[in-house]
Amino acid sequence: MRILGIDPGLQTTGFGVVDAEGHALHYVASGTISTKHLDRGDLPARLKVLFDGIGEIVARYQPQTTAVEIVFVNVNPQSTLLLGQARGACLTALVARDLPVAEYTALQMKRAVAGHGQAAKAQVQEMVKRLLNLPGLPGSDAADALGIAITHAHVGSSMAKLAEAASLGRSTSGMYRQGRTR
Amino acid sequence: MRILGIDPGLQTTGFGVVDAEGHALHYVASGTISTKHLDRGDLPARLKVLFDGIGEIVARYQPQTTAVEIVFVNVNPQSTLLLGQARGACLTALVARDLPVAEYTALQMKRAVAGHGQAAKAQVQEMVKRLLNLPGLPGSDAADALGIAITHAHVGSSMAKLAEAASLGRSTSGMYRQGRTR
Repeated sequence: MRILGIDPGLQTTGFGVVDAEGHALHYVASGTISTKHLDRGDLPARLKVLFDGIGEIVARYQPQTTAVEIVFVNVNPQSTLLLGQARGACLTALVARDLPVAEYTALQMKRAVAGHGQAAKAQVQEMVKRLLNLPGLPGSDAADALGIAITHAHVGSSMAKLAEAASLGRSTSGMYRQGRTR
Repeated sequence: MRILGIDPGLQTTGFGVVDAEGHALHYVASGTISTKHLDRGDLPARLKVLFDGIGEIVARYQPQTTAVEIVFVNVNPQSTLLLGQARGACLTALVARDLPVAEYTALQMKRAVAGHGQAAKAQVQEMVKRLLNLPGLPGSDAADALGIAITHAHVGSSMAKLAEAASLGRSTSGMYRQGRTR
């Protein structure tokens, strides 16, 4: 199962691609899509860069499923609105290509990757490096996106175990509701 | 010049298509894209309906240019974030099809359509009906979208007059900055 994780942002959107085989995780690719070279006031052009950038990543790495970080309300409402529009463009780039999209909060990602929700950015980078046997630390945005993909892989393998348990007659209702897949 | 106006919203997005020939305006079509039939919690699916809906409108009416209402920060930050994501999906649907996008605030639209920025919804509907010789009142979301298209047509005809004036040797710099086209 190839998973594309996305950490949406208007200036920098992180992406990370991971192959999950049962409990084993393999790194495929990661990086960022930047809109910093564009006129800050030209929002349509910036959203186009995000949409096209994600389209290129999907075309190149052919993920079977995707997971996108749930962004939070900012102190500044205008920034919240801009971040919302960036995330809307990222989600749209995925659903326009008929990819399933799961959504996780940063808290869920930190728990899955570092074991606790208060993990600092550097801890997430370090844990992502270890979990994927990377030769060096990934950048912060790429690490978050890889962390989101890893979170989805964990939920996927838990769900598989659950399905196995269910086939042995146990109830599964109401469990593992952290992630939601269309 | 055929203009598609959009009034973005997560539950209901209004659209309006207008042909502008110099000062003359002709109604082509209007309506809404609704996501009310979908699970409210499934944001990716709702954004896909907006993206696909705008795609169908573009394919059917073939606008040459587009204008989208600039949305405002809501009292509730979570609503602001959702509205931002809806607007991001709408903008993305246009730029993904390489259409130019202009942006206007509701204030600019009300001034262009009703003559003053404090116009009530009913006044906008009434003025849009008159300006486009409609047989009945358009719905509120469709009227706002038609109003945005009309605003863009006005700016376009002002710019044409300005270009004419400029060719007679007058300076145009810094004027008519209300609308911004990519």
